[in-house]
Amino acid sequence: MDDDFLFMNLLYDFYGALLTDKQKEIFEMYYLNDYSLGEISELLNISRQGVYDTLKRAESSLKFFEEKLGLVKRHQEIMNKLQEIKKLIDRIKAQEANPEVVKIVEEIAQKLEELNP
Amino acid sequence: MDDDFLFMNLLYDFYGALLTDKQKEIFEMYYLNDYSLGEISELLNISRQGVYDTLKRAESSLKFFEEKLGLVKRHQEIMNKLQEIKKLIDRIKAQEANPEVVKIVEEIAQKLEELNP
Repeated sequence: MDDDFLFMNLLYDFYGALLTDKQKEIFEMYYLNDYSLGEISELLNISRQGVYDTLKRAESSLKFFEEKLGLVKRHQEIMNKLQEIKKLIDRIKAQEANPEVVKIVEEIAQKLEELNP
Repeated sequence: MDDDFLFMNLLYDFYGALLTDKQKEIFEMYYLNDYSLGEISELLNISRQGVYDTLKRAESSLKFFEEKLGLVKRHQEIMNKLQEIKKLIDRIKAQEANPEVVKIVEEIAQKLEELNP
């Protein structure tokens, strides 16, 4: 299976809704709930090979969507940029004397928190 | 065809890469280059009904992806939030006296421009 759990989870966040129900079920058991292939095979009463194949197909689909749409990459770029903006906001907070400006800066910080793209 | 050209163009920005080459070609002629069904039919040498069907299938696919993933909706929410942040930044700019803070505020404005999610 794909070693990069974090990346796979991100792909699933973005494109998981496009998988089949069976793919979703097995993907979540493996990647979100940390079951092994053997455990999933037992719990769902399908062969270990069947679990493996379904998981592989799900991973391929998710990677295909990312190749085509690149939304996870875009998301990470936005998150990095927002992180930079938050640091700048903190720098203003640290040296701002005007209470009105402080209030606006706090409003911006709040809105940045809500963004969560 | 779908009346909401702007919405269709947004959907295409996000999910167009998942359409077939033929769907992309006809979609772009109709929605981006403003050709009529009749003109596309003539230019590509396929029936007007064929053009219509391909366009309808493309539109359905784009709407399906949005229903499943909701990325355009999310994008619009982010854009609205960023717009609010930009207004707050302008309010700070208008009343800030400290040149160091002004510099930071301008840096934030710049980064917000670059965001373009």
